[in-house]
Amino acid sequence: ANIVTLPGDGVGPEVTAAAVAVLEAVAAHYEHEFAFDEQLIGGAAIDATGEPLPADALDACKAADAVLLGAVGGPKWSDPNAPVRPEQGLLALRAALGVYANLRPLTVHPALADLSPLKNEKLKDVDVLFVRELTGGAYFGAKTKTADAATDECKYTVAEVERVTRRAFELARARRRHVTSVDKANVLETSRLWRRTVTRVAADYPDVTLEHQLVDSMAMLLLTRPGSYDVVVTENLFGDILTDEAAALAGSLGLLPSASLGEGSNGLYEPIHGSAPDIAGKGVANPVGTILSVALLLRHSLRLEAEAQAVEAAIDHVLQHGPRTRDVGGDAGTVEVRDAVLKALA
Amino acid sequence: ANIVTLPGDGVGPEVTAAAVAVLEAVAAHYEHEFAFDEQLIGGAAIDATGEPLPADALDACKAADAVLLGAVGGPKWSDPNAPVRPEQGLLALRAALGVYANLRPLTVHPALADLSPLKNEKLKDVDVLFVRELTGGAYFGAKTKTADAATDECKYTVAEVERVTRRAFELARARRRHVTSVDKANVLETSRLWRRTVTRVAADYPDVTLEHQLVDSMAMLLLTRPGSYDVVVTENLFGDILTDEAAALAGSLGLLPSASLGEGSNGLYEPIHGSAPDIAGKGVANPVGTILSVALLLRHSLRLEAEAQAVEAAIDHVLQHGPRTRDVGGDAGTVEVRDAVLKALA
Ligand SMILES: CC(C)[C@H](C(=O)O)[C@@H](O)C(=O)O
Ligand SMILES: CC(C)[C@H](C(=O)O)[C@@H](O)C(=O)O
Repeated sequence: ANIVTLPGDGVGPEVTAAAVAVLEAVAAHYEHEFAFDEQLIGGAAIDATGEPLPADALDACKAADAVLLGAVGGPKWSDPNAPVRPEQGLLALRAALGVYANLRPLTVHPALADLSPLKNEKLKDVDVLFVRELTGGAYFGAKTKTADAATDECKYTVAEVERVTRRAFELARARRRHVTSVDKANVLETSRLWRRTVTRVAADYPDVTLEHQLVDSMAMLLLTRPGSYDVVVTENLFGDILTDEAAALAGSLGLLPSASLGEGSNGLYEPIHGSAPDIAGKGVANPVGTILSVALLLRHSLRLEAEAQAVEAAIDHVLQHGPRTRDVGGDAGTVEVRDAVLKALA
Repeated sequence: ANIVTLPGDGVGPEVTAAAVAVLEAVAAHYEHEFAFDEQLIGGAAIDATGEPLPADALDACKAADAVLLGAVGGPKWSDPNAPVRPEQGLLALRAALGVYANLRPLTVHPALADLSPLKNEKLKDVDVLFVRELTGGAYFGAKTKTADAATDECKYTVAEVERVTRRAFELARARRRHVTSVDKANVLETSRLWRRTVTRVAADYPDVTLEHQLVDSMAMLLLTRPGSYDVVVTENLFGDILTDEAAALAGSLGLLPSASLGEGSNGLYEPIHGSAPDIAGKGVANPVGTILSVALLLRHSLRLEAEAQAVEAAIDHVLQHGPRTRDVGGDAGTVEVRDAVLKALA
């Protein structure tokens, strides 16, 4: 399998390196051949080439079996009015790969419940799979800008809503058969189209229960009864906000993985944390979110379920017994955690 | 003073009646004359007139010194594809009154900290004033709809951002002199305009500290360090989501008030909860959010600060000693809580 790595900015290179080491160990142990091709994205790419996603990098990603990304952005490129910004590389990549379904699983490891801002009793049974639409909405709509005003258009087609909804329902079938669709149908036209389409598609999945929630209510319900959700499907911007909110429940952003999938088997895998410039280069970043992203890569792009589960079991072991990085109450570095995962895998 | 009441739907009439009783007690005790004029809005207005905000109601609101609203909406009118919907009345009212600054204070009463999903130690020092832009953004932008697609335009002008920002900074001066502006400047053009404008306006308030946060990060930070925010200013839709999330921290939506202000002294006051159809008509709705909205009405529209503080002290007393409604762990009804507030006021 050909895997493109995009270390990107900040802690991106550190966590990507740890995750690649895990993939190499999996390859050795299970006798697979993984070829790695490192490419530029984000601020690092802007510095080297002037562009946030050089054509070479994009071509390599398109041809790959899977893409593993670290993080993009940082204070050096943070002027939101700059003509070229690191985030543009990530958005262009998502669009070019057509990865419209962003899967963000949330579970709270029992050994880390004390780190969560939520009361422990609220965390019982929390096991949510967010399916965030990733290539539509206000992220990709027409924009205008004058000295006096600016606009962003949020646009959705029925086809865009339908494909991500089907993905959510398929995933729910392998879980607890419950889908919560989140919109703002009392205000937005795109949300009314969203709700209408989700409701129609749901009829094809009579074995799955569908519930609609407004995004403002959902922001509250994720705190008051997080244990009652299974699959949550929503549009791009609402998904961005709700998944970060939900991530806080896990105790650290550094723990959580994501997979972005399209129609083919190629996918984009990244931890949900950002480039964390405050700790970049110090060797203390938590590699768990990226290593769990590698488990998703093994599962969804390479169809290596046993290998995916082995990685997840190794992470589970390390979260239980340590070592842990600072963000989860320990004092270990990235490399120590990586080595503990490699040992647990062996 | 002339006060228009808009009881609306669901529990709206029950909580509005309790709050009017408090205003009447304040009038009697402090020798003011308050004239009340009840008007239709929302589903109740649709049923009676076919329109969610009849012209008579709107005219009365425009001529009033202040407007007190209960809630709008409910299952009877919940088809998001219906041509006329209760929420349209509320949005039209906000626009017609020009109440662009929606103030949503959040504090957590120590006696109710156990009801919060957040760990008690996180709730120490939580005292946030959200200032949500209320008459712009995707709520009021152009919308299109075809069989295959829909769009919502989010639009902001510099003037719209500037006036709500100035309001936020003025309010911060009477508090802890810290403003957090929330946007999604790494993706949205309107957010870049927002950030640029807020940054420029902040230069006129050198005594106030300004911080920018991205909306996704903020959704997390409200859980991990809620005690570190003072005034939070943001656009309409982000404010809708973040204030509901934050409201969960207080233990019950039923506790929280809001004030929507424009350039004049007229204002729109409403609890942040909705019509709560599941408990409507049962006499068990929590009137605290609406009564605290009345305190804001006394403060901001009638400039009766002592009276506002007296109402707040009475609520504080009742939250401490009971009675309490079900949503906050008691078994009292709306009327019992109202009577306890009246007694504490006397
Ligand atoms: C970096 C940014 C553009 C991105 C997004 O908003 O999608 C990030 O927040 C994410 O959630 O992956
Ligand atoms: C009822 C609805 C239109 C409204 C809004 O979204 O503004 C409500 O959620 C609120 O926050 O006041």
